[in-house]
Amino acid sequence: MASIYLDHNATTALDNSVLESMLPWMTSQAGNPTSRHIFGRAARDAVEHARAQVAEACGAYTSQVVFTSCGTEANNFAVKGMTEIKSATTARQILTSAIEHPCVSRPAIAMQRYGYVNQRIVVDADGKVDLEKFKLQLNAPTGLVSVMLANNETGVIQELDIITEAARSAGAFMHTDAVQALGKINLNFADLNVNAMTISSHKIHGPQGAAALIVDKKLDLPPLLHGGGQERGLRSGTENVAAIVGFGAACELAISNLANFSAHTTALRNQLEQGLQALAANIFGKHAARIPNTSFFSIDSIEGETLVMALDRKGYAVASGSACSSDSTEPSHVLLAMGVPADVARGAIRVSFSASNTSAQVASFLATLNNEILRLRQLTAIAA
Amino acid sequence: MASIYLDHNATTALDNSVLESMLPWMTSQAGNPTSRHIFGRAARDAVEHARAQVAEACGAYTSQVVFTSCGTEANNFAVKGMTEIKSATTARQILTSAIEHPCVSRPAIAMQRYGYVNQRIVVDADGKVDLEKFKLQLNAPTGLVSVMLANNETGVIQELDIITEAARSAGAFMHTDAVQALGKINLNFADLNVNAMTISSHKIHGPQGAAALIVDKKLDLPPLLHGGGQERGLRSGTENVAAIVGFGAACELAISNLANFSAHTTALRNQLEQGLQALAANIFGKHAARIPNTSFFSIDSIEGETLVMALDRKGYAVASGSACSSDSTEPSHVLLAMGVPADVARGAIRVSFSASNTSAQVASFLATLNNEILRLRQLTAIAA
Repeated sequence: MASIYLDHNATTALDNSVLESMLPWMTSQAGNPTSRHIFGRAARDAVEHARAQVAEACGAYTSQVVFTSCGTEANNFAVKGMTEIKSATTARQILTSAIEHPCVSRPAIAMQRYGYVNQRIVVDADGKVDLEKFKLQLNAPTGLVSVMLANNETGVIQELDIITEAARSAGAFMHTDAVQALGKINLNFADLNVNAMTISSHKIHGPQGAAALIVDKKLDLPPLLHGGGQERGLRSGTENVAAIVGFGAACELAISNLANFSAHTTALRNQLEQGLQALAANIFGKHAARIPNTSFFSIDSIEGETLVMALDRKGYAVASGSACSSDSTEPSHVLLAMGVPADVARGAIRVSFSASNTSAQVASFLATLNNEILRLRQLTAIAA
Repeated sequence: MASIYLDHNATTALDNSVLESMLPWMTSQAGNPTSRHIFGRAARDAVEHARAQVAEACGAYTSQVVFTSCGTEANNFAVKGMTEIKSATTARQILTSAIEHPCVSRPAIAMQRYGYVNQRIVVDADGKVDLEKFKLQLNAPTGLVSVMLANNETGVIQELDIITEAARSAGAFMHTDAVQALGKINLNFADLNVNAMTISSHKIHGPQGAAALIVDKKLDLPPLLHGGGQERGLRSGTENVAAIVGFGAACELAISNLANFSAHTTALRNQLEQGLQALAANIFGKHAARIPNTSFFSIDSIEGETLVMALDRKGYAVASGSACSSDSTEPSHVLLAMGVPADVARGAIRVSFSASNTSAQVASFLATLNNEILRLRQLTAIAA
């Protein structure tokens, strides 16, 4: 029985056309892009072509694209580096939303050893930043605000224009983690007006091993990785040529497929969530604008981790929250921040679609979900 | 005309069998290793299998292998992290050899903003650490010593046992960058007795995008990348599964080929250096023990960069020093540290072989080199 993959916010399969673009860099002698000879120059050209594809996909200039190895690296680079720019001033506060991925929140906490203070931005029951409370927090001198564009668990989209305007008016730098937004909604760095933005390859059918921080060049950002001075001194290390080429191809593909992706996954999610209503599920963030492919829900009195494993045995790969926190069995910090009680949060299941999923898969998933819920409830009843 | 690649210390072609090991992770749905479902568990198993291959190749335990995205990241992680362990003490000195790759020396310099002091360890005319001067430097309280095992430009191998013994006796932590040693000489983490060691994939016919810091578990090393807690909290970020799998396969291959590699590239280098003697070349580090595949030399009154470009046009890819310093036209810092005059250092050319190079290639390279030297000297004579 081939399992059905419904966990595309965790990682996606490499698209075949993307793989095709990468293979020339994996099947013959590829040079180091810093080398001056013909092999090196060809690799440099390939990296720069990919940079143009990535820039085009997110409304940035090529000179604003700094390639990194993954979204986590880009977020560490942004949070640590943008904090340090302000180190000469008295703006020692770093504001991060309570629903950030740990690769934003933990770097912010790590900076506390250097005298910075990390404060969390509160979200409401829909998972959206509480704008009034946020603006009050900005009364303290603030070096950096980091708020993700779309949440990886709920899919909820922030009113980033208002948040950015407030942050920048208060003199803070503004960063957004847009990893879950790229390829799912329109994304335009210039329009967002943030100082830096993180995007990643393996969430859009590109390879693991490539991501980017899009950086306003006026920012005097220090590198996180020091060394040979690649990426205009902002990210040293031999460029991962094949992965960067694949990231570029995946960006181009994602943008050309965006309208289809949105329509298709919206329809799948509507079908799913209609079925979930019949099961009396709690759907988190449903009153907010969301990226189209994501549904995060719980079923009363069913433990999420147990249900994930039961569904896995039946051939459906879903998540109990994000895959970001290694081996954590704690309830989702995103749901707790939204005021969801811990016992409800422990029941949470995330389904995230790609364009490759089908309506038939959703129907069979719902039938299996229904059966497993009944079975688990019977087990619980017997145990009680 | 297909060019002949003689720049394997910069990067190597992906071996076909390594690519084969990676393709299953690039041609079907691969999971995020942190995910609990069947896709995630399969990815986790693949990463752990590769970890065992990497550990076996360098005489380490699997629990000591921390995967990173590249050697530069591993060196930044080591130098910054190992310095910070000592931050509670008065040992504020970081000692790095004068011939380190910039991804060791520049992180050490970067730590000076936090009150550490970076001092260089002097090398002799052969490119080996001056042990007497080094021991004197250790009289100042020292947190970290970092000395590479084999130099990327000259190939010179350090007496790391003596250096490590002195550093550890003085209470310092000891790190070595062994990127150019793996697959070229015997490498055993336990025997070296260092606290941490860097190795990388793309120098041994593995993919770009994977490397490792081998870490003594007794070291309470802080992460460089904070986030989801992958790699036992030491390196957050979704694992680059295909690249890690390829790194493991490349390690296994390199170890099984080590004796052949050594014999074959030693023969090629002997052939090359015999020919170079007839051209009255200066061969740097020739009196020291070297990794077998590397020859670094200059021809009097010929500018290295000019010669590299001339050879490139004739179909030979060699380097003028390392590919590590992006677009630098400065003379090699390694040669300057060895006391080579700047004008001689500007003439330097590096040839680095792999097992795929042949004796016929060396012969034709020597003939072409001879012709190009004559041609360039004539041009110079006409200009004068």
